[in-house]
Amino acid sequence: MPSPLRVTVWNEYHHEKHNPEVAKHYPQGIHQVIRDGLLANDLPHVRTATLGEPEHGLSEAVLDETDVLLWWGHRRHDDVDDAIVSRVQARVLAGMGLVVLHSGHYSKIFKRLMGTACTLNWRHDGEKERLWVVAPQHPIAEGIDRYFEIEREEMYGEPFDIPTPDELIFLAWFKGGEVFRAGCTFSRGRGRIFYFQPGHETFPTYHHPMVRKVIANGVRWAAPTLTTREVPANVQRKALEPIG
Amino acid sequence: MPSPLRVTVWNEYHHEKHNPEVAKHYPQGIHQVIRDGLLANDLPHVRTATLGEPEHGLSEAVLDETDVLLWWGHRRHDDVDDAIVSRVQARVLAGMGLVVLHSGHYSKIFKRLMGTACTLNWRHDGEKERLWVVAPQHPIAEGIDRYFEIEREEMYGEPFDIPTPDELIFLAWFKGGEVFRAGCTFSRGRGRIFYFQPGHETFPTYHHPMVRKVIANGVRWAAPTLTTREVPANVQRKALEPIG
Amino acid sequence: MPSPLRVTVWNEYHHEKHNPEVAKHYPQGIHQVIRDGLLANDLPHVRTATLGEPEHGLSEAVLDETDVLLWWGHRRHDDVDDAIVSRVQARVLAGMGLVVLHSGHYSKIFKRLMGTACTLNWRHDGEKERLWVVAPQHPIAEGIDRYFEIEREEMYGEPFDIPTPDELIFLAWFKGGEVFRAGCTFSRGRGRIFYFQPGHETFPTYHHPMVRKVIANGVRWAAPTLTTREVPANVQRKALEPIG
Amino acid sequence: MPSPLRVTVWNEYHHEKHNPEVAKHYPQGIHQVIRDGLLANDLPHVRTATLGEPEHGLSEAVLDETDVLLWWGHRRHDDVDDAIVSRVQARVLAGMGLVVLHSGHYSKIFKRLMGTACTLNWRHDGEKERLWVVAPQHPIAEGIDRYFEIEREEMYGEPFDIPTPDELIFLAWFKGGEVFRAGCTFSRGRGRIFYFQPGHETFPTYHHPMVRKVIANGVRWAAPTLTTREVPANVQRKALEPIG
Repeated sequence: MPSPLRVTVWNEYHHEKHNPEVAKHYPQGIHQVIRDGLLANDLPHVRTATLGEPEHGLSEAVLDETDVLLWWGHRRHDDVDDAIVSRVQARVLAGMGLVVLHSGHYSKIFKRLMGTACTLNWRHDGEKERLWVVAPQHPIAEGIDRYFEIEREEMYGEPFDIPTPDELIFLAWFKGGEVFRAGCTFSRGRGRIFYFQPGHETFPTYHHPMVRKVIANGVRWAAPTLTTREVPANVQRKALEPIG
Repeated sequence: MPSPLRVTVWNEYHHEKHNPEVAKHYPQGIHQVIRDGLLANDLPHVRTATLGEPEHGLSEAVLDETDVLLWWGHRRHDDVDDAIVSRVQARVLAGMGLVVLHSGHYSKIFKRLMGTACTLNWRHDGEKERLWVVAPQHPIAEGIDRYFEIEREEMYGEPFDIPTPDELIFLAWFKGGEVFRAGCTFSRGRGRIFYFQPGHETFPTYHHPMVRKVIANGVRWAAPTLTTREVPANVQRKALEPIG
Repeated sequence: MPSPLRVTVWNEYHHEKHNPEVAKHYPQGIHQVIRDGLLANDLPHVRTATLGEPEHGLSEAVLDETDVLLWWGHRRHDDVDDAIVSRVQARVLAGMGLVVLHSGHYSKIFKRLMGTACTLNWRHDGEKERLWVVAPQHPIAEGIDRYFEIEREEMYGEPFDIPTPDELIFLAWFKGGEVFRAGCTFSRGRGRIFYFQPGHETFPTYHHPMVRKVIANGVRWAAPTLTTREVPANVQRKALEPIG
Repeated sequence: MPSPLRVTVWNEYHHEKHNPEVAKHYPQGIHQVIRDGLLANDLPHVRTATLGEPEHGLSEAVLDETDVLLWWGHRRHDDVDDAIVSRVQARVLAGMGLVVLHSGHYSKIFKRLMGTACTLNWRHDGEKERLWVVAPQHPIAEGIDRYFEIEREEMYGEPFDIPTPDELIFLAWFKGGEVFRAGCTFSRGRGRIFYFQPGHETFPTYHHPMVRKVIANGVRWAAPTLTTREVPANVQRKALEPIG
């Protein structure tokens, strides 16, 4: 029987302490509400980690017990230590799942794994977003109807400077006139990455049941398979056939 | 009429000065022989740059006049300045083509653009390699028959830890029993990247007419289109439709 | 010097003869207006072919002189002879370019080449469509700004049942609330395929200068490379190495 | 709890009855030995179907109870009824998994789903094949070491005329000098397809424990998710937003 999936939700935890509008929706931090959403979707093993903790809460010991890491950052991407970014990258390449949320598109770890600028167009006036399922058969779309709506969200618009995703799961329609590849998957090394666009801090997005369902689906999808394998390495090998 | 394609061949230029076996094949450096191959394939505008030059020969002025950059490095990847790597990465994302050769798979710039470990298996006993065309219609395979052979090459074997390539052009068969995705393309930002596996320093690979042809094809394919566009950026936008 | 690109525009040519609303925009047929758009974009060698002609105007002789074929059909997909569909498919697999327009998504030839149902959601109320460039560096987006608008078009909405495209060039936003992968490329055999969504018969879409530019770009992109190669075939081969 | 996976193994069942060399390895038919391999890998619900049965053993009732279909054919591809091929294709597009084995590359159903010629190079002298894992993290490679060998197999060599696979799992090395994309995945509609190259009828390939393990992994991977959804269809939709 597979062991239970162990999840860590990382948050820079800045806006919630400095902006009352944000604190209203996320009084204990965005990470706690994301955690609540996972618990509500039958993922009981969820811890949290934040920027201000030693090693940003992402010690080797914590990562040893993390199957899937979620990442929310926005204002303080630059304050994340490069050594911790390298540590997380190495874990992903060795098989840890990673779910990158909203403004995490511009985090060091996402840019590191993509290799691109990860830029996009944006507007945080708060407008209706409608998320369309492009890949109805994909486990990340499990339990989602043809589309769902978020009453007020930040607009993220194309072009989104990412490598071509392996799979495109959701496309977003914004009332103001833009579109966005809002749910995308990537494989890097042995690890699986899911990017999901909704989640501006001034809106109650992470309380939305469909957003919560998609994130839980993404966590399950990104979970490493049971296989234990050597991590990627340059290895010298003897010939298997005569080469003389 | 399009302006002529301007190419820069970069080489760490180390082995040639320290290993007589290498100097025998490349007395003026690997970069000069690669340059000769491009000249012989009707690409007349080729300059070179090496690690030991100021800014590794890759000043902003040089890159301003470079449409496609080729990269050969092996022993001294770590001596390449991170700032120059960032500069080259930014150029690729803005549209400069990049052709990464052989042991360049483990260069900072390739790992930076891939986001993965870029590891592989290897053996430099010198054995027959046969390169098979998998995508006969691709311009990088132009003028190449079903396959071609290199009498003695270093073996590079799977798994090669890269993101799934956009296109797989060549697969390599090695006499010792391995296979390798030897010719792959990637798009990153506005730039095109071609990785091509042959080229160990102790063998005369860059004198091989078919290797030269493929590299010239790769340079032509990676050349930026004529479009001048803004480089990727995060930009705030006004709504195009009423959102009230 | 490459020989000039030879284009054939195919149209079922039905609505124009039976619906005055269509005839108003396309009195000589949709194919003639598409042809005009190509001529206006420096593609002078354009012929047309229609369903009612012998062999639907697609004899082997015509296809011998066709580098890129455009396809517009809607109401009479079922009247296209399976033998002609097989003939066109074989040509594409051997290298002929194919540009499939609008309701051609449901043509026999497109379904044959995709292998999927090619279904989608639709509404022909006539509403604003905005086409966003997702791949600004792609030659098919050459000369197109960040987006362009069509005042009245038929809505085509996701999910669009196609294999994952090789490249996604345009995403469409519709005023009524949907999104669509409106410009996609595929490689099949030696041939290149571009699907482009705009073009409902009751609207003057093929008179739109940006639509015309995209179609011309698509034709240039889909053109076969100069290489002459054997077409795909099952071939028995002798061993290149001793297998004893 | 998910219901148990129901598998149907289809075989044309021709060679076994006419060629003693084949009958020696597969006295009851290739399908029975493939079935044995699935049973041995903890997939207990396996039935078989053959060309000679009514509706080739693939009635709607049988397909109603089939989660994943395996397909082995070689000499009698043309004798498969087009209506049955259409039926199987529709099932795949609606979510049924499909595992295509060896010479099934040239079956009507595989060509139908790929849209390409599906041609390749071949030689059935019987030579050593070594299958390399390219995607060690993929569930289809679960339990497989870096590579495994088959003492005598038919050579299948590139170019293999298929659309670019979604994922490349295995690459094959052949002693006679060729390479092949021997294990590939594709998504079509709601269905998942796995192509796996080994299995020439004159060799005991389907008795090989590693071949059996890969096929069982492929069956598990191709199984439909639990979601019940409407099958792909063209549907007219009302506007969700005012378009006036």
